[in-house]
Amino acid sequence: MSDQNTDVDGPEPDAHPEGAARTEGAAHTRRSGLSRRGMLGLAGAAVGAGVVGFGAGAAVGHAVGSSPTGATYPFYGANQAGIVTPAQDRLHFAAFDVAAGLDRDGLIELLRDWTVAAARMTQGRPAGKYGPASGPSDAPPDDTGEALDLPPGGLTLTFGFGPTLFTAADGTDRFGIAARRPEALVDLPRFPGDALIDSLTGGDLCVQACSEDPQVAVHAIRNLSRIAFGRAAIRWSQLGFGRTSSTSRSQTTPRNLFGFKDGTANIKAEDSTVVDDQVWAAASDGATWMHGGSYLVARKIRMTIETWDRQQLGEQERIIGRDKGEGAPLSGGTEFTEPNFLALSAGGGTKIDPDSHVRLAHPTMNDGAQLLRRGYNFVDGNDDLGRLNAGLFFIAFQRDPRKQFIPIQARLAKNDALNEYLKHVGSAIFAVPPGARDGSYVGAGLFA
Amino acid sequence: MSDQNTDVDGPEPDAHPEGAARTEGAAHTRRSGLSRRGMLGLAGAAVGAGVVGFGAGAAVGHAVGSSPTGATYPFYGANQAGIVTPAQDRLHFAAFDVAAGLDRDGLIELLRDWTVAAARMTQGRPAGKYGPASGPSDAPPDDTGEALDLPPGGLTLTFGFGPTLFTAADGTDRFGIAARRPEALVDLPRFPGDALIDSLTGGDLCVQACSEDPQVAVHAIRNLSRIAFGRAAIRWSQLGFGRTSSTSRSQTTPRNLFGFKDGTANIKAEDSTVVDDQVWAAASDGATWMHGGSYLVARKIRMTIETWDRQQLGEQERIIGRDKGEGAPLSGGTEFTEPNFLALSAGGGTKIDPDSHVRLAHPTMNDGAQLLRRGYNFVDGNDDLGRLNAGLFFIAFQRDPRKQFIPIQARLAKNDALNEYLKHVGSAIFAVPPGARDGSYVGAGLFA
Repeated sequence: MSDQNTDVDGPEPDAHPEGAARTEGAAHTRRSGLSRRGMLGLAGAAVGAGVVGFGAGAAVGHAVGSSPTGATYPFYGANQAGIVTPAQDRLHFAAFDVAAGLDRDGLIELLRDWTVAAARMTQGRPAGKYGPASGPSDAPPDDTGEALDLPPGGLTLTFGFGPTLFTAADGTDRFGIAARRPEALVDLPRFPGDALIDSLTGGDLCVQACSEDPQVAVHAIRNLSRIAFGRAAIRWSQLGFGRTSSTSRSQTTPRNLFGFKDGTANIKAEDSTVVDDQVWAAASDGATWMHGGSYLVARKIRMTIETWDRQQLGEQERIIGRDKGEGAPLSGGTEFTEPNFLALSAGGGTKIDPDSHVRLAHPTMNDGAQLLRRGYNFVDGNDDLGRLNAGLFFIAFQRDPRKQFIPIQARLAKNDALNEYLKHVGSAIFAVPPGARDGSYVGAGLFA
Repeated sequence: MSDQNTDVDGPEPDAHPEGAARTEGAAHTRRSGLSRRGMLGLAGAAVGAGVVGFGAGAAVGHAVGSSPTGATYPFYGANQAGIVTPAQDRLHFAAFDVAAGLDRDGLIELLRDWTVAAARMTQGRPAGKYGPASGPSDAPPDDTGEALDLPPGGLTLTFGFGPTLFTAADGTDRFGIAARRPEALVDLPRFPGDALIDSLTGGDLCVQACSEDPQVAVHAIRNLSRIAFGRAAIRWSQLGFGRTSSTSRSQTTPRNLFGFKDGTANIKAEDSTVVDDQVWAAASDGATWMHGGSYLVARKIRMTIETWDRQQLGEQERIIGRDKGEGAPLSGGTEFTEPNFLALSAGGGTKIDPDSHVRLAHPTMNDGAQLLRRGYNFVDGNDDLGRLNAGLFFIAFQRDPRKQFIPIQARLAKNDALNEYLKHVGSAIFAVPPGARDGSYVGAGLFA
């Protein structure tokens, strides 16, 4: 497992040699733990002791650091971090389109630059060598500075390649990679009820930034966008304030904006057999450069929460198929009890409605297919009628969308009782390559 | 000081009598401390022991609770909370317009309903008596549920009245309060460079929700909006992810999206003489019902961060008047050293540029006028060119905008070197009444 000690820049110019900048006070959370200004000193001091390693599962999510906001996850490893990593609380996701003139070498250089900056930032360090305030006065800083005093925040940065990177909309093979497009990276079909907005859909590249601190996630996307200037620009982006899934048994189940627990039956990192079967692309799956990678589907789903809020509690629970307080299936038990879709109510029907969300999304209804969900709640202001533009930014990782997201969503789009309160307005799919080896870059296998 | 024990509903119907729901695990922050489901049990158990009190300064900001996310601030008191309360990390701000048909009694009823719900939610309890999941099955829940498992998060809810509440745009006195409009509640003038968008400007009412947890802040605004259905609707709203000011000496100074520390010279709650002189409206100021209240100015300020990021470090520091790393004035010293605007550089000019932001905003340049700033960083997605729609949602509290915000902003709008990187797109002013007495409602003095 590699770590922050492997930086190749040598000791940092550290304008602030006071070392760890700890802050006190019960009334704030953001400033606790080891700040990245403190990290500078440590990182510099540790150069030379560098332990370089690489092993399967390195990025699975063993945090370094004693507090959530002080946590760091290794950037380099067999898999990219930010997939089975315990879902952090905040998100900034950005889809990028590459610039018209960019060629293959330019794309590789961008990925190299992003890799170096991402490896630094995920370890709580500035995006570039000089940091935000310690470089030459007559040059722009190579970090924008707003995260300077903040702890690493458990930041992960996860990169993906969209279908249009392989074959542009006009059919051209801009980077000589069309033949290497994985079969699993299909164009998503149009589902019943889709109301997709072009400016919220697609993208050549994506970066998913997750952190316990939203300012750390925003800082990362901003700096990657800054680094990409002239080579790629943001096509669409999304902030999420609250995770809607657990990806580890160490986490409690959060709630979505319908007020229900979400992700009770999500794939958990600890279920390594399920993770291998359902999340990671295997060497036998086709594109060998994707071995250890995964496929990310993002859907921006608006919820008509004002309408939902005027719905009876019993009807809300019928639609979901679980009770609202505990999250137990309506067939009985507690949150983690398996639903019994055959259990009959006194009235004669099944206790769990056949069109309920929990039934239609359940693996038994989908040939055993599951998704590792990693979505976030969002509110983007309000519309002209004063209704909150709110909903779920759905993110799911999977081994093959043709067997997982697409058939599951096709079933849900057709019959899910929840559809009355949902509108899918954005959609994208990306091939998420395996993790980078230290010294290499994310996606190197595609260009090898 | 009143507290959660004074609830008049009697013991809560508690569907989950397990009491305090504590969660473990180092990998997440949101679920730590006492959840509001746990609070239900405690609140119910404590009814009957109710200690009712009311004293000056009750809402100044002594948190109950041992962790930031577990903190609660009293809702009732001489002043509203959320002003000198140590600035929480996350914001959801909403401006409302009242519905066409609402009359004086309807407005009072809305304020009563909001007060009851706000008092509950700030103490970590559901917005209504039945909570999200424990009421009758055939009625909509009177809480939307997404905060059910979350700790109180230090939530404060601060209410304000806009100029149009007193006199509608068409000149009518809808609520019989035109004659009671405070003289200090002026319509803000148009400042040089203003690029205001009507749909981000004004409002009859406002609610500022601040919390350490964004989901708690969003939950509060959503439920107040739900309660207002048919009586008032959101005109505009804003999420902020990172505070840009400290309002207590117990807090470190945060950074804005220019990457600089912001609010070093802000009014701090501990400076009670300054707070009395500059923040709270006095009985002698005119409108007696505003005694103990304040005036809130909100400005949505877009930053052209991509342009800023390509500016030299030295130029950034010249524009601000402070160094970027430490935040010290360019005349020397450390962050909290007073700037010396007369100190000369080797080149002959002053070390601090005459048009620097720090000089033009300084009290010595503004007849001693200061503001209690409580702003937040925001990112609202991106524009068509891939630039982040980012900036500062500026909030300032003051005793009299005619002597504070307006002359300060007039000076800044004219000469501030920072203007090249700023665009004011939203603007609003509100009279923030004093705190409510338990059993009464926010703004009762206006209708007495």
